[in-house]
Amino acid sequence: MNLKGNDPIGVFDSGLGGLTVVKELLHELPNERIVYFGDTARVPYGTKSRETIIRYSKEIVSVLLKRRVKMVIVACNTASSLALDVLKAEYKLPIIGVIDPGARKAAMTTKNKKVAIIATHSTVKSGKYAKRLKQLKRGLNIISQPCPLFVPLVEEGWLEHDITIQTAQEYLKDLKAAQVDTLILGCTHYPLLKKVIGYVMGPKVTLIDSAKEIAFEVKSTLLERGLLRTDLKPPDHLYLVSDEPDIFKYRAVKFLGCSMDNVKRYSL
Amino acid sequence: MNLKGNDPIGVFDSGLGGLTVVKELLHELPNERIVYFGDTARVPYGTKSRETIIRYSKEIVSVLLKRRVKMVIVACNTASSLALDVLKAEYKLPIIGVIDPGARKAAMTTKNKKVAIIATHSTVKSGKYAKRLKQLKRGLNIISQPCPLFVPLVEEGWLEHDITIQTAQEYLKDLKAAQVDTLILGCTHYPLLKKVIGYVMGPKVTLIDSAKEIAFEVKSTLLERGLLRTDLKPPDHLYLVSDEPDIFKYRAVKFLGCSMDNVKRYSL
Repeated sequence: MNLKGNDPIGVFDSGLGGLTVVKELLHELPNERIVYFGDTARVPYGTKSRETIIRYSKEIVSVLLKRRVKMVIVACNTASSLALDVLKAEYKLPIIGVIDPGARKAAMTTKNKKVAIIATHSTVKSGKYAKRLKQLKRGLNIISQPCPLFVPLVEEGWLEHDITIQTAQEYLKDLKAAQVDTLILGCTHYPLLKKVIGYVMGPKVTLIDSAKEIAFEVKSTLLERGLLRTDLKPPDHLYLVSDEPDIFKYRAVKFLGCSMDNVKRYSL
Repeated sequence: MNLKGNDPIGVFDSGLGGLTVVKELLHELPNERIVYFGDTARVPYGTKSRETIIRYSKEIVSVLLKRRVKMVIVACNTASSLALDVLKAEYKLPIIGVIDPGARKAAMTTKNKKVAIIATHSTVKSGKYAKRLKQLKRGLNIISQPCPLFVPLVEEGWLEHDITIQTAQEYLKDLKAAQVDTLILGCTHYPLLKKVIGYVMGPKVTLIDSAKEIAFEVKSTLLERGLLRTDLKPPDHLYLVSDEPDIFKYRAVKFLGCSMDNVKRYSL
């Protein structure tokens, strides 16, 4: 596989959530070209089985490879938890998931060795965050909590609504009681609830935003491999979605913080 | 197309919700065989585009036809709103959606001519309920309200939770203020929230459960066409799902009110 620095970075997610990762990439690596794939026709992944997530992920990586990406970022916690190993074994290019960068940052951050992970059912059930954290640091006390209503609350736009605060209080009460000092936002939608989650957990708890961490990891990987884009033309990004582009464009602004031009449909 | 009474009734939905329809069918037509298809690998439909819903619906009807069904019930409000016309034009067997039976019952029920519909974004946007209601009765005052958090609240099992009550109060406040006397539960998940919705709307409002209405319509269609099952053996039902059968079986009890034996995977 002949990877070239001027080729784009491929990023995929079950839908919109991965745009929180794109946002950090654009900030950290403003000269890179991005090809994003959002599987909006089959979103969400968080309630689906491992077998199905692997099948969907492979289909998407094939699409990205046709676009000659030099690297793939699995910007979806569920797909990172369930399909990353399979993808890494199957394809020759660098593939980075969101679990590792988030877990590393959490292991470095915690002082009282009590770390919590909030995520979808599938991500929690996979146990991948807990496993990785234990490899990184001994004697950690790890608690996981699925928060399935957070994604629909974000999609409803209730980012600071009373009901969102109460839902957070309900989901997070055991983590508060356990006095964790570090909380991993284990789903790409959750950074949009940072204010509410931070308010409920209190000022002593550090929230780990995987989107930021993965951007640092991508930068160092490209540097190490000499794969940074050197082209001086401003990069043109491409967003592919499996459902209607207009719905995606309309809702994407919230995640990306800016609008996007080049959104195309690609049916799977 | 040679339809036979002893052939099964095909029922499909984006996931579990259609089981509320199956429950009413088993009650109303206990001698009929059911082949159910739940598209659990691509659930939910309520946020997806018309084009995608039509494509998915056609794929599922083809699967049901291979199982030699004598009739198809579109037990999903979104698919009924967006794909029913296309399906009816394309296939020769009787196809029944959930919109018509629910709208008819609502038109018969209302006294003050103020009718509300609650449903997913796609169903509300399609305007199908409102259009049908206006054909059925003159001078109706119709209000529609999308309630996208109701499905995840049901799936979380928070059927009578404080947060569910507050969410219902938020979604339903305009409908209450408008003093509707009839409310259509325009999504197959919503009958599970009947208690909360009834409590919030108050005792003067009649809730229309499309699942019950469609069962009556199926019965009369089979009677008219001489297509009732006459076989004396107890019927054996079949449940096909596009994702992991075990997850479906585990969660289905809540919707069906009883467990199920024959659940198989059918990847699309």
